[in-house]
Amino acid sequence: MAHYNLAFLGFGNVGRALAQLLESKRAELRERHNLEFTITGVAARRLGWHANPGGYSAAELLHGDLGTLTARSQRPFTDLAALRDWLRATQANVLFENTSMNPHTGQPAIDYIRTALEAGVHVVSANKGPVVHAYHELRDLAASKGVRFLHEAAVMGGAPIFSLFREALPAARLLSFRGILNSTTNLMLTEMEHGAGFDQAVKKAQDMGIAETDPSFDVDGWDATVKVSALATVLMDYALKPEAVQREGIRGLTPEVLSTARLLGRPYKLVCQAERRPDGTVAASVRPEQVPLDDPLARCDGATSILLFQMDVIHGLTLSELHPDAITTAYGPLADFITLARRR
Amino acid sequence: MAHYNLAFLGFGNVGRALAQLLESKRAELRERHNLEFTITGVAARRLGWHANPGGYSAAELLHGDLGTLTARSQRPFTDLAALRDWLRATQANVLFENTSMNPHTGQPAIDYIRTALEAGVHVVSANKGPVVHAYHELRDLAASKGVRFLHEAAVMGGAPIFSLFREALPAARLLSFRGILNSTTNLMLTEMEHGAGFDQAVKKAQDMGIAETDPSFDVDGWDATVKVSALATVLMDYALKPEAVQREGIRGLTPEVLSTARLLGRPYKLVCQAERRPDGTVAASVRPEQVPLDDPLARCDGATSILLFQMDVIHGLTLSELHPDAITTAYGPLADFITLARRR
Repeated sequence: MAHYNLAFLGFGNVGRALAQLLESKRAELRERHNLEFTITGVAARRLGWHANPGGYSAAELLHGDLGTLTARSQRPFTDLAALRDWLRATQANVLFENTSMNPHTGQPAIDYIRTALEAGVHVVSANKGPVVHAYHELRDLAASKGVRFLHEAAVMGGAPIFSLFREALPAARLLSFRGILNSTTNLMLTEMEHGAGFDQAVKKAQDMGIAETDPSFDVDGWDATVKVSALATVLMDYALKPEAVQREGIRGLTPEVLSTARLLGRPYKLVCQAERRPDGTVAASVRPEQVPLDDPLARCDGATSILLFQMDVIHGLTLSELHPDAITTAYGPLADFITLARRR
Repeated sequence: MAHYNLAFLGFGNVGRALAQLLESKRAELRERHNLEFTITGVAARRLGWHANPGGYSAAELLHGDLGTLTARSQRPFTDLAALRDWLRATQANVLFENTSMNPHTGQPAIDYIRTALEAGVHVVSANKGPVVHAYHELRDLAASKGVRFLHEAAVMGGAPIFSLFREALPAARLLSFRGILNSTTNLMLTEMEHGAGFDQAVKKAQDMGIAETDPSFDVDGWDATVKVSALATVLMDYALKPEAVQREGIRGLTPEVLSTARLLGRPYKLVCQAERRPDGTVAASVRPEQVPLDDPLARCDGATSILLFQMDVIHGLTLSELHPDAITTAYGPLADFITLARRR
């Protein structure tokens, strides 16, 4: 039986869903994977730094006031020395990094992850920024410390994209991929086809909890672009920066244009694609495109994501994820935890 | 650098495509996986038993006459003592088992696999029969000998179904699946919707090389049924026998019925499904069903396969494989080879 101390950096929706999922899978982890865990630390901007090597109960984590459990440190959340001290106090083996970060730089998450890896702690991140901006550095740093940097939830929530290629497609060379990766815009396009205005469509996505207060990051295609970069970086081993992706958002599309296109059987989708060029570089784009009805992308509505992969040996492999929720996204970090424990 | 001796039992389309694929991936296996191999044996009903510990070249394997390379043994192909002697002569570490077998019993492939595992040889099989009729026995036997029994190509050719669940979905519990798994009938239904008669549709599938001379195994739903059993046995850990699957083939469907159904927007598909019941058993069926056009199964035409999975944590994960060819199917055994070498 292997035992791991787990620490949570960032404790919003994903972190809380993960704590819940871990708790509900405790017996299964023990029986199927010989794996036991104790949650020994939680830190978040609004909560401060909390450590208890004896472990927090699920109730304390999800319903209690962490402030009453341990002395609350007043050091700022971006203080890397405080992070180091906290990691030491938690005796963590694995850090679940679910902080909010700037997707254009990956910071401050990259600094957090680097600090934890340098301390010999495995890192499981749900953030795509660090993958896009520092994947090769963090992967190599982890290897040099004998730990792992895993990030399954960074793209397509619970759908196991990264592990599919890493574990199940070891000898396939990815030539290109194409898909729909942003649920806010995908839902908005569906709404606007049915006559909703831009603002109404944004509100619908916000009400469903999938769009941010400021929807520009989704609407201008940035979110999809960062995901394309993350996929190209890891799956095609090519450090594709978001700025190198041809990007166009959906602001230019009106309800009239969208409903007419749907009526004519060629609906608009915010299509992501990437392709390896003969010279080894990767060309990628994110932009609204009209797709024929027999294209799998045409039938991908609402919050569903889809990816089509072309490989040297498998000509068309399609993976899609319907109706993800917070637990689905928390599944990625859980799977990463099992993966790193398996390879100890 | 790890080195493996490989032996091929059965050398038809899949075996030959695999030999070719291995050869074309030789440099990649060395560089990415620290893996070297020598093909030291080939045996098939029509070829006899061939062993050469020094290794066969790709040209000898694919274009040469193996009979001129080694003394051809006259012992019958089903002689397990001959198999044991041949395995010893080849000094094989891995047996690729691609023989023809009786899908209703899994024999003689089960005997071959058992014999190889008992001799401490890893087995990679493309056959679904042994999975359906002896999975738990063969898996446990392999474990007791410190080797692996892997079978990725048994269902959906190159699409990594088994390894997806084994490696990438370690903590998801599969509740049900649904899909299209037989390409002959799927192609026939499409042809018949367009007016082809039953015999014409069979001939089309035969001309494309996907249907056997006797198409009953496909047409009566047996092939799909055996695949459903294999999936339930491995992915749901429930030994579901093909006889326990409610089975109905496509003989009852006429071109008129099919084209009308398509016209009315509810085309027929040979739908496979399996679901875990509250008492832990698994209920499964294979039968023609009318599906609505917004069902992913409705748009799965020709030789494309599709599977939709419902799990406790991921509510809808869809995997589909377009236009598989012999190299795609050979990819399964190649991936299995890398998997077993990784875990040495």
